[in-house]
Amino acid sequence: MKDILPAEMEMRDYLINLIKETYKSFGYTPIETPCIEHIENLSSKQGGENEKLIFKILKRGEKLNLETAKEENDVVDSALRYDLTVPLVRFYSNNSASLPSPFKALQIGSVWRADRPQRGRFRQFVQCDIDVLGDATNLAEIELILATTTLLGKIGFEDFAVHINDRRILKEMASYCDFKEEDFDNIFIILDKMDKIAIEGVVAELLSEGYAPESVKKYQSLLTKLDKSADFATSMEVLKGVVSEEVLANLATIVQSVEGVNTAKYQLKFDTTLVRGMSYYTGTIFEIKMNGFNGSVAGGGRYDDMIAKFTGNATPACGFSIGFERIVTILLESGYQIPTKAKKVAYLIEKGMDTVRLCEIINQAQKQRVEGMNVLVAFMNKNRKFQKEQLISQGYEDIVDFFKDALK
Amino acid sequence: MKDILPAEMEMRDYLINLIKETYKSFGYTPIETPCIEHIENLSSKQGGENEKLIFKILKRGEKLNLETAKEENDVVDSALRYDLTVPLVRFYSNNSASLPSPFKALQIGSVWRADRPQRGRFRQFVQCDIDVLGDATNLAEIELILATTTLLGKIGFEDFAVHINDRRILKEMASYCDFKEEDFDNIFIILDKMDKIAIEGVVAELLSEGYAPESVKKYQSLLTKLDKSADFATSMEVLKGVVSEEVLANLATIVQSVEGVNTAKYQLKFDTTLVRGMSYYTGTIFEIKMNGFNGSVAGGGRYDDMIAKFTGNATPACGFSIGFERIVTILLESGYQIPTKAKKVAYLIEKGMDTVRLCEIINQAQKQRVEGMNVLVAFMNKNRKFQKEQLISQGYEDIVDFFKDALK
Repeated sequence: MKDILPAEMEMRDYLINLIKETYKSFGYTPIETPCIEHIENLSSKQGGENEKLIFKILKRGEKLNLETAKEENDVVDSALRYDLTVPLVRFYSNNSASLPSPFKALQIGSVWRADRPQRGRFRQFVQCDIDVLGDATNLAEIELILATTTLLGKIGFEDFAVHINDRRILKEMASYCDFKEEDFDNIFIILDKMDKIAIEGVVAELLSEGYAPESVKKYQSLLTKLDKSADFATSMEVLKGVVSEEVLANLATIVQSVEGVNTAKYQLKFDTTLVRGMSYYTGTIFEIKMNGFNGSVAGGGRYDDMIAKFTGNATPACGFSIGFERIVTILLESGYQIPTKAKKVAYLIEKGMDTVRLCEIINQAQKQRVEGMNVLVAFMNKNRKFQKEQLISQGYEDIVDFFKDALK
Repeated sequence: MKDILPAEMEMRDYLINLIKETYKSFGYTPIETPCIEHIENLSSKQGGENEKLIFKILKRGEKLNLETAKEENDVVDSALRYDLTVPLVRFYSNNSASLPSPFKALQIGSVWRADRPQRGRFRQFVQCDIDVLGDATNLAEIELILATTTLLGKIGFEDFAVHINDRRILKEMASYCDFKEEDFDNIFIILDKMDKIAIEGVVAELLSEGYAPESVKKYQSLLTKLDKSADFATSMEVLKGVVSEEVLANLATIVQSVEGVNTAKYQLKFDTTLVRGMSYYTGTIFEIKMNGFNGSVAGGGRYDDMIAKFTGNATPACGFSIGFERIVTILLESGYQIPTKAKKVAYLIEKGMDTVRLCEIINQAQKQRVEGMNVLVAFMNKNRKFQKEQLISQGYEDIVDFFKDALK
């Protein structure tokens, strides 16, 4: 976990404000849940591998009995959340009576995972999710994609692509090729590697894992026709008869609507190799990739079954999460200039200034503060040259000296 | 711990933005530290009673051995922070090489205490601190008080008072009355109750605890002369010969400077009964009380010895913390109107609208969003009347219907 110093903090604050302003303009309402959840909520298997990485919190007082404790769960009753989706579902089931339907939520918050530390990845990091709960229509997807791409456009990103697919297309394609349903997850894990190992690699791996050669051949033929260079209409044509019409019509409406509303410069691509790791997705899935940066900067999809698993009430749901930490890193490393900075002014006062004159100086600072400037009032250090260099490196544009003897 | 729903969230976001904007205008720079600290940092006795309330985090992997564990500290290696001061000191000692001197920090963050839950108090809550590290001069106190009172003024609070005292005044007064130094802390705990039990109660309690009657009498005489109705000059006169001149001159400069710079409507009061619980304070202490609300809305002071205890390097320090949760509660309960709200508009679309028309409607929403409005696009629910009532209760001012047949 890391300390966040002023320069990075400025970027994070700027980004958070831009996110809130943008997403609120789309009708998403900010909510917050506690960082700690009951251990049962975080061990429901919905979180996949992430559940192995949770930080557990020790029971307190009489509840804790170390002598009789045999396993971890005897000594813990809660843990730090590993994502914002599980808490959202718990929040929705607790508070749905006082929430509108559909409910459009915006969450920005820290999550914790005991991953092996590595460059640029930390055990505490911020996630930023928008979700629509209670909307079965694809207006949810359309507005999620528009909100996210509008945000990226406002930041100044241009060269990115929204990859879109549907878990049902993945499944119906695999089914069409006579793969068995229990093998789907493994097949999709292999398909997911297409970017790295190409179609030949995918085929080789499927065969080496012992899947029927006829199935693999059929799959290869389909995947080749659905190559990324194929345009959307061609892809839909290929999938006719393979995937149910309803699913294709749904995807077409989303793509046409998003393309019909142009606010940011980006591409929307049907991507038959897009899988998205989490098994809870049930329908549309999407991911945003940016030229020049590995991995995705945002991802999400529809997860219509998850809320029922927690609450017993079927509630359609769809979400989009941006990679907050990733975007901060990109902005910091590219030397991004924050457009909305207040002017920074420093007043340096000679030590021993009399109180009356000190008040005058502070009053002057207060006036400039009211005018929207950031005014630092400080005494001169012994090494004034170094002090000024430091101030300049912190972004102070004006540095004003105040001496006891004004003629100095 | 509690979920934060949209209405409260709006107030919190508004307040956080106002805090950041105001404190940054005084040259405080936002920083952030991880919510988790090593257990040793949180068990250093600097935190007093709060250290008993920490949430401890279970060791992971090979480090955890439940079989040989005898006490809590065998199974934990970290914990959630209970305040922002200990993390700030750790942050400063880790990062001081890349920080300006003096360093003015602004922290807004969650802290956790396993207090017995009670009305309006939760186990996770937000603290908001400003601190000046490395400034031995009283410019630190002056600007801390000005920044905090400016903030309260911007929120719209008027009827409040800044109570100010100095731990050295407390000590030198007690010493002057021949109390023993080892009894000071207990005497101050009794003095702290003056508001509730009056001077007679304080005297009775001191006597009942067995302190020398001559000392108590001398103390009573001093305290009576320093009654809250006494003005600042009179109080200083009373303390001449009791408290060292340097300490009195320091306090006088702070009071004169703050009063000489008028930005918010409040009183500044020397309060000889102000004690502040934490034992780490070494000099000036202050607290803000608001008419009509029990307890304080902000508090702080100078703690020049604390950083040396952690780092070995003597570093003067002074901070002011506002009661973030308290202020949120006051604003919510008083029906405070946020002055900077964006206009909220809802578009209700009849289900089954064709894609071309849907794009037109969303495009119209996008235009209004660019103009600064928050535009919700949603399909009409079956019960449209209820849907509209819900939207109105969420603050939507305009609700526009879009029917498939425009003549409807």
